[in-house]
Formats: sequence, C-alpha cells, structure tokens
Amino acid sequence: MWDLLIINACLVTQEPDRGPIPRGFVAVQDGVLAALGSMSDLDPEHGAAKSIDARGGLVMPGLVNTHIHGAMTLFRGLADDLPLMVWLNEHIFPAEAAHVNEELVYWGTKLACAEMLLSGTTGFADGYFLEDQAARAAQEAGLRCVMGQGVIDFPAPGVPDPGKNLKTAREFLEKWRGVSPLIQPSVFCHSPYTCSKETLIGGKELAREFGTIFQIHVSETREEVEQVRSDRGLTPVRYLDDLGLLDESTLAVHCVWVDDEEIDILARRRTPAVVCVESHMKLASGSAPVVRMLARGVNVAMGTDGPASNNNLNMFGEAGTLARLTKVREMDPTALPAARALYLAGPAGAAALGWRDVTGMLKPGLRADLIVLDLSPPHLTPLYRPRSHLVYASNGHEIRTVLVDGRVVVEDGRLIAFDLRETLARVREIADGIRG
Amino acid sequence: MWDLLIINACLVTQEPDRGPIPRGFVAVQDGVLAALGSMSDLDPEHGAAKSIDARGGLVMPGLVNTHIHGAMTLFRGLADDLPLMVWLNEHIFPAEAAHVNEELVYWGTKLACAEMLLSGTTGFADGYFLEDQAARAAQEAGLRCVMGQGVIDFPAPGVPDPGKNLKTAREFLEKWRGVSPLIQPSVFCHSPYTCSKETLIGGKELAREFGTIFQIHVSETREEVEQVRSDRGLTPVRYLDDLGLLDESTLAVHCVWVDDEEIDILARRRTPAVVCVESHMKLASGSAPVVRMLARGVNVAMGTDGPASNNNLNMFGEAGTLARLTKVREMDPTALPAARALYLAGPAGAAALGWRDVTGMLKPGLRADLIVLDLSPPHLTPLYRPRSHLVYASNGHEIRTVLVDGRVVVEDGRLIAFDLRETLARVREIADGIRG
Repeated sequence: MWDLLIINACLVTQEPDRGPIPRGFVAVQDGVLAALGSMSDLDPEHGAAKSIDARGGLVMPGLVNTHIHGAMTLFRGLADDLPLMVWLNEHIFPAEAAHVNEELVYWGTKLACAEMLLSGTTGFADGYFLEDQAARAAQEAGLRCVMGQGVIDFPAPGVPDPGKNLKTAREFLEKWRGVSPLIQPSVFCHSPYTCSKETLIGGKELAREFGTIFQIHVSETREEVEQVRSDRGLTPVRYLDDLGLLDESTLAVHCVWVDDEEIDILARRRTPAVVCVESHMKLASGSAPVVRMLARGVNVAMGTDGPASNNNLNMFGEAGTLARLTKVREMDPTALPAARALYLAGPAGAAALGWRDVTGMLKPGLRADLIVLDLSPPHLTPLYRPRSHLVYASNGHEIRTVLVDGRVVVEDGRLIAFDLRETLARVREIADGIRG
Repeated sequence: MWDLLIINACLVTQEPDRGPIPRGFVAVQDGVLAALGSMSDLDPEHGAAKSIDARGGLVMPGLVNTHIHGAMTLFRGLADDLPLMVWLNEHIFPAEAAHVNEELVYWGTKLACAEMLLSGTTGFADGYFLEDQAARAAQEAGLRCVMGQGVIDFPAPGVPDPGKNLKTAREFLEKWRGVSPLIQPSVFCHSPYTCSKETLIGGKELAREFGTIFQIHVSETREEVEQVRSDRGLTPVRYLDDLGLLDESTLAVHCVWVDDEEIDILARRRTPAVVCVESHMKLASGSAPVVRMLARGVNVAMGTDGPASNNNLNMFGEAGTLARLTKVREMDPTALPAARALYLAGPAGAAALGWRDVTGMLKPGLRADLIVLDLSPPHLTPLYRPRSHLVYASNGHEIRTVLVDGRVVVEDGRLIAFDLRETLARVREIADGIRG
C-alpha cells in the first residue's frame, strides 16, 4: 500500500536530459517518492491509502528559493523606486531598527512560507535576525529549509552588542541542531563590507563545526566591489577565497559583479552562486553573468531575495525573468532555454543547499516535495511544451496541491498546513504599527 | 438609481497626480462611470440595482494591451529558445501557412480574449489575417478593441494574392464600420520591410479614409533597421515619416532601435510607440529606450505582442517587467516608478488607440471598463502602496470582477461573457492538428 498516489498527470521530473512524461503517475510512501512513470506502467493492483486524480494537470518537484529574508514581508512595498542608499538608509534600516522584534520575525516568516507554498516553492534558505523565531515559523509551516542567523558587526535586532554576534549564532545552531529533519540551522554573515575579517572567519568556522551552510552576500553592486577592494585590498570573491571561506557549503549570494577569474574561483571551490534577478533589476544593481558562470562550471542557483526588494517570492516568475533577461543581456534567444531556467529554480538550489540526494527532482528514493499544477486556465492553453509554459506563460499561482516530505500542506489551492487567516490578520496588525 | 455600485474598495484611478483612494466607491449608470469617491462621500440614500462589496479589494480601470496577434494563442509555446530566423522560418511561418484558417483565427482570438479578461485587460489592439473572424470573436467576448486586418506583400491566410491585400482590408473596414461601439476596424501593415512603398501609402490612406488606426511594426531588431536602411535608403522611422505615414493615429509598434532624431520625429508627429518588453527580451531583440522616449515627449504604450513570442497576455506582468528592465537598463532604480509603469499599461494605451475620452481611467463620464482585484492573498500582504503591489507583487490573476462598457463579463473570478469550456475544447482540438 502506498500512502498517496497521484494519477493522470504530466510529469516534469527536472532530471537533466529527461523530457516530460505526458501522462504519468507518482506514488509516495513514508515521505519518499516510491515510484513514478507512465500511466501504462502503473500496476492497477497496487493499492494506495489516498489517491489524487490530477486530471491532466502537471506534477513536478517543488521549487527551491535559495535566498530570502522571509520576515521582510512586513516591509513589502513600504518604499520602492528610490536610489539604493536612500531606500536603505531612510526607509529599510530605520524601519528595521524601529520595528523588528520576535513577533515581526515570526509572523513575517510565516507569511513568507504561505506565499512560497501557494506559488510552488517547497524549500528555501533564509537569512535574518532573531532567526529562532523564523525557524519556529518555518517549522510550523512545514517547509524544508536552511535558516541562517544573521551576523553583522553593527547592533542588530536581538543582538544589540555586535561583539556577541557569533555567540548568538552558536546558540541558535545549538538550539536547532537535530530538532527537525526539515530544518537546518545555518550562519548568515551579512557581507564582506559589514563584517570584519575575524567575524567572517569565525562565522565560517562555526558553520564548519556544525557541518552546515554558510550564507553571505557577495558583489551585489559595483560600489560594494569598489569599497571592498579599497578597504580589504581585494575584490569580494578573491577576498573571501583568500580568507579560506569558499567551499561547496558557502552560498555566494548575488555575484552580479564578478570577473572571469572570480568565476573560475567559484567554480574551482564548488561554491554556488545564488542570483536574485528581479531584485537586481529593481534595485538597478546590474545583471549577473549567468551564461558565463554556467559555462565555466559554477552551480548557479536562484533566489528572490527579500520581499522588500522584489516584491514577491514567486520562483516561477523569477525563472521567467531570468530566462528573458539573460537572452536580452547576451542578445541571444537561445541563451538560458526554459528547461535550464526551470532547473536553476529547483534542482540547482537543492544542490546548493546540500539536498542533492534529498529533493529537487522527481526520482524514486528522494523525499516527496512536489507540487500539482492546474494546466487548464486559458493562459496555459494549448499545451505543446510543458516547461515552456512553466517559465514563459505561468503566473506561478496555478498550484492545486503541495507536498513537503510527503505531507500535504496545500490542497485544492488552499493552504492547510496552518491557519492562514490568523497569519494575515497578525501581519496586518504589525503593518498598521509600521505605517504609523 | 445607479445600475451598479461597488463599495469598500481601494480605488486606483490612474489619473496622473492622483493617489489611491483607500476606501472608496464607484457607481455605474448606462455603461458610464457615474460617480466615484471616498465612502464618506457616498450618499446612503442613492439606490443601485446591483451592489458589489469589494471587501477591501481594489478597483481600477481595465488595462489596455496595445499590440497583440490574438489568434497566435494557437502557437503559444510551440517553439521557443531558438534563433529568431529559425523560429520564424522553420516554425512559426510554416505553422501559419499550414494551419491558419477562419476557425483557428476565431477560436484562437476568443481564447486570447478570455485570457485578457481574466488577467484584467479590457481593451486591446489586434493585428492578424482573416481579421473578420477575430473581430467576430472579440465582439462575442465583449472587449473594447481595435482590430487590424493584416496587409503584407506576400501570400497570406485569406489573401493568397498579395495584389488584393488592400482590397481585402477595405472590405473588412466596410463590413465592421459602425457594427459595434466596442469594435473599431483598422489596417495593420506588417512592416516597412514586408510592404512596398505603395502598399504602405495605400494602407495609411485607407485608414485615413475610414478615420481609424494604422498599425505597423517598426524597428524591432537591429537587422531589420539595417535592411530597411539598405533597401529604402532611410531608417524605418525616417522612412515612414518621409512617406507621410506618421501621425497620432499610427501605432509604431516595437521602437527598440530608434535614435534620438527618430524619437523626436515620433514626438513631433504625436505617433505612439508601443513597446512589447517581454517579447523583446525573449527574442533577444533588445530593450526599447523608454526613458528617452518619455523624456522627449513620446506617448509610450505597452503591448504583450502575440502569445507565440511572449508567451502570455498578462499586462500586470508586462508592467512589472518593463519597470524592472528599465531600471537595470538605465542603472537607475528611480527610472520608471510603479505608478508610471502602470499608467503606460493603461491610460497611455487608451490614448494611443484614440480612447482618451472613452476609457483608461476611473473618471466620471468615461465608459465603465473596470476591474476588481482581491488584495487578500499572502503575496499582496501587507498593503502600503497599492500601485507598488500591482506592478511588483501581483501575478495579474487576482481579478474577481471585470466590467467592459458597464457589462459584467467576469464575476467571482469566472468568465461569464461566453462559454469558456467550449473555447478551450475547440482550441485543444485545433492544437492536436498542429502538433500532428
């Protein structure tokens, strides 16, 4: 007996070099993908405790959002269309200083989880302060995640004394280590220009000690690259490599302004580059050299960044934007085809987070993190090439069912993992205080 | 007695320099916007035959998609990620030659109308062949539109003898003139490189004779600009101006590769430039100089282009992409703020189509083309700045109610203007034949 059987679905497995299976099934047992294939290969005698008829819908692995600051849903749309330093110094930083507390982080992250599940994302990497509350929210929401306690050499929410930033991170790692197979505590050092050499080295050591991911912002803006070169003597990727911080468990987030030698360093160290294309565009940071990074062997993954700079957490939209921007950047319509963009939004993120043998693809033996989409709306009709639709036509909200680790968290397009109405109400209350 | 009263809605009027009204009402009478304002200004004694409580949703004018080829929904996703000439010559042109007939144009356009209404677009400009069938579909769907019969100096669907292309266009104009206040027949000359000088002049004369819009593709690719310069001796905008074709009733579609002098010509002639940003990116055509065109006084409107090159007809997505691309193109996060991008996706298109006194804004006296959006989903929570959400966070499918010319065509998120299931079924049948 399988626990769950989904039938009559087009399967997009996200395995490289494997095309869609037009009419297939997926079986789940004990949280694991037990079997999948064409309907013609389904043994009609094999029972299942629960069965879902996808009626021609599409089943694929949940996407992976490899960089967010979930709590910042509370600052979504608070200020936009401003010069970067005005936006940060006059709006975001003051709002964070005045309003970020445990309650905001908890409810803001929970809202982010709702948005991600309802738009087909089942795994993510978060970095923020008071991360204990973010991890609590993620645990209740049921997503698979890497949760990074923020480390910065300035007073921060929950860490008024920056001298205690690494101590706070250690406490977080100790508290959350082994609590849940879905939650991996991590260290998020803000950047090479906001953390000292000692802090960066200490943060990475801590991550190594706990065998976990080390997250850091790298080369998002031209100005930042100049600042690091001027203050530290090297450009950001070279500087981090010089400190010994680059390996396959370090997420180099942004990588907009990296030269070919830096790209080769990332490739050699097997350090994933996480691009956040819509945020890079909206903040006018630039466009990451995705084609060059891929050609030189870097594992490029994708994130939305926080909802204050995007302003959504929709990974389907992000894949479409990355495919389109890459084509026009390279002046080549064959650059980053749909299937590749979709791969970057899922399996590449899973690999970056150390989940290569856990999730990201539909493959027997992996955990059952999957989504069922409705393909019947006008904007997805007719259907010739499923992955083209997912990247260029989908709005990311055709999601009917979502499973994480085999557990149904979205059903009939509605979130059932937790009380969404309560979350929306609490977020609106907190936002009323921010609006003032 | 009003015919319809919508209450408890945030109003985005799209009037320049007018901010959102946080809690307002809109009244409709005989297809016209009869009154609107804050709830506190609503006379409780004023009756209405029908009342809709928006429950904190948002009411705004329907958007205007100023350039589509609606029938090409049938080729959505048929071939993507290919070099432009391979895509056109090996996929799109052969598919058109083999499959375009009256039935395809009728059902394909009807599907396009469904997609547009369900994503908040109430007005559009179409250009294709067998346009009589497209106009019939649009009439049954109930949208406001400019329908352009295609004119090209090659054999085309319904016009095997290109010598009869202008005669066919004249027959179309005669047939549809005055049939419906919502449908304006028009002439769509394909481009300066596919139409002779005589055809272009004849097409514009025909449009002038019927007092209607003249549509033409202009400067979409660098190669095309070089070809026109080489064949006609002038770049496309200069060439069209030299022929006397540019005035405020000519839509110059694309304008990706226009120099400052050409921009000044468009401004002086009051000729709208219609940019199709997602298609320009996906085909790697380039990025239109939107900021320069606006600064020099061109009326810039927006279209999605056909669903074979986009691959959707979602104008909210288009506004978000244009705002983001413009910022990164100019390396300036203040370039094209949300409110301006939203204006280009609505009132600017209405002005381009000659509907300045008809639609595009919420303003008493204009026709009631409006949409009601649900603001409650997680990705639109919390709400600080409505227009920011519409451009940067919305997926374009939060539409609950749509009115065109005062008639309710979408209710509770469902299309009621015509039988959508029949349209989807017929389109799938035709697609089965194309797939082969």
